Amino acid sequence: MELWFTEKQTPNINFSCKASQTLFAERTPYQDLALIDTEQFGRMLVLDGMVMTTIKDEFVYHEMITWPALNTHPNPRNVLVIGGGDGGTIREIVKHPKVEKATLVEIDQRVIEVSREYLPEISCALNHPKVDILVRDGIAHVNESNSKYDIILVDSTEPVGPAVGLFSEEFYRAIYGALKDDGLFVAQTESPFFNADLIRKMFGYTKGIFPVAKLYLANVPTYPSGLWSFTMGSKKYDPNETPINHPDVATRYYTPELHHSAFQLPRFVQELLV
Amino acid sequence: MELWFTEKQTPNINFSCKASQTLFAERTPYQDLALIDTEQFGRMLVLDGMVMTTIKDEFVYHEMITWPALNTHPNPRNVLVIGGGDGGTIREIVKHPKVEKATLVEIDQRVIEVSREYLPEISCALNHPKVDILVRDGIAHVNESNSKYDIILVDSTEPVGPAVGLFSEEFYRAIYGALKDDGLFVAQTESPFFNADLIRKMFGYTKGIFPVAKLYLANVPTYPSGLWSFTMGSKKYDPNETPINHPDVATRYYTPELHHSAFQLPRFVQELLV
Repeated sequence: MELWFTEKQTPNINFSCKASQTLFAERTPYQDLALIDTEQFGRMLVLDGMVMTTIKDEFVYHEMITWPALNTHPNPRNVLVIGGGDGGTIREIVKHPKVEKATLVEIDQRVIEVSREYLPEISCALNHPKVDILVRDGIAHVNESNSKYDIILVDSTEPVGPAVGLFSEEFYRAIYGALKDDGLFVAQTESPFFNADLIRKMFGYTKGIFPVAKLYLANVPTYPSGLWSFTMGSKKYDPNETPINHPDVATRYYTPELHHSAFQLPRFVQELLV
Repeated sequence: MELWFTEKQTPNINFSCKASQTLFAERTPYQDLALIDTEQFGRMLVLDGMVMTTIKDEFVYHEMITWPALNTHPNPRNVLVIGGGDGGTIREIVKHPKVEKATLVEIDQRVIEVSREYLPEISCALNHPKVDILVRDGIAHVNESNSKYDIILVDSTEPVGPAVGLFSEEFYRAIYGALKDDGLFVAQTESPFFNADLIRKMFGYTKGIFPVAKLYLANVPTYPSGLWSFTMGSKKYDPNETPINHPDVATRYYTPELHHSAFQLPRFVQELLV
């Protein structure tokens, strides 16, 4: 028997990975959750049928949603992550020596539990003393936070299901309010090849709210098209005009040189932002 | 009825595109050749079951195999393309005002004929007065050429079937011999995620033969992993230390800033090259 997991990346593209086993598949109060052992990418977390993270390529996404922000802010003491219950983003954040507290706000407790049990390589820092975990709605948490965070990272699923509200102008305004006067945020904003309208919209919100708005890219092979965008909004610091003092932390994708080059966009992506 | 084209990108990954029709599929003397109209990427050229190019994303590959070389060499008068029978690489080359002659050496006449008939957006410059087309073995042509070309571009298929000989140290030595004293070459060298050993090997050959050896990357959604590498070997000019005077030619992916940032590699790719 051959077992294949297939994600319908768009109505017209299927991406299939050969699997050795399905560890389990269940319905949480928020979404379908599955864990699969794939031959190519190792263990894979799947939410609502979409690849969230895999052991083999998670380093790209988790390093690139964190280090450009952590190294743009000169004093990233208090960092908030919305979503990201697998713990990969938290794992990177607590490596930064200046971080004093990393708060994870994940709506779906099962994502955290399953990641703790089955994805130790990714979830390994969830018990770190710097980490606070809140199982609740990220939007409510951001709405209740006032000038509190240096950095907010929106490590969400796709804009369907529980994450819909995270892709709204209202939420971006709430993020602005939850950040300190020199704070900044980064959100994952999908593929420039397949989600151009979404990028245009989210970047437009960011540009309207934050003095500094930038987009950067990274290559995640298990995400649709393999090219992924991140939108950064910043009250003060510009990621391209800040000296990069990367702490003594080993990375597999991010480098200080890549920090700058990731913001150099292909022309067709530049044209989404004007 | 639903029609789906599937490429087995690795033994453990299938990439499938919904299709409206297969225009035809045939066996040439060298390979299986098919043309398919896909919903996501438009018309698609498939050789030996692998996506070669599509109307929607061909601009990435064709701009990125040409412009970094064309803009690194101050006088790219005489340019050779090995493979590339679809004509996309030639189309970009003849846009450069300094190019006097672009020679295409393609082993499979059917690729040229089919592209002329069915892919006019890509093949449109094959009749350009600057272009010479030779239907023959690229290795033989390079072996017979002596200090003749400013630039050689190896626009090959994957290292199986007719292209195997293009991924050899012997061929890279022959390229060195076919280039003028200040010449340079670029070859497509597959995905850093899935073909790390190949990149390590081809880059090693290049570094052993050419004073300047560099690797750069571009995002091609229809190629395995979505991230593609190009190896450049140069006798004199360094692509990162040359002022970029991009001619007045519109591009959709390449920009002079991206020229430099494409050479800023993720750490795991850097580590393949040492």
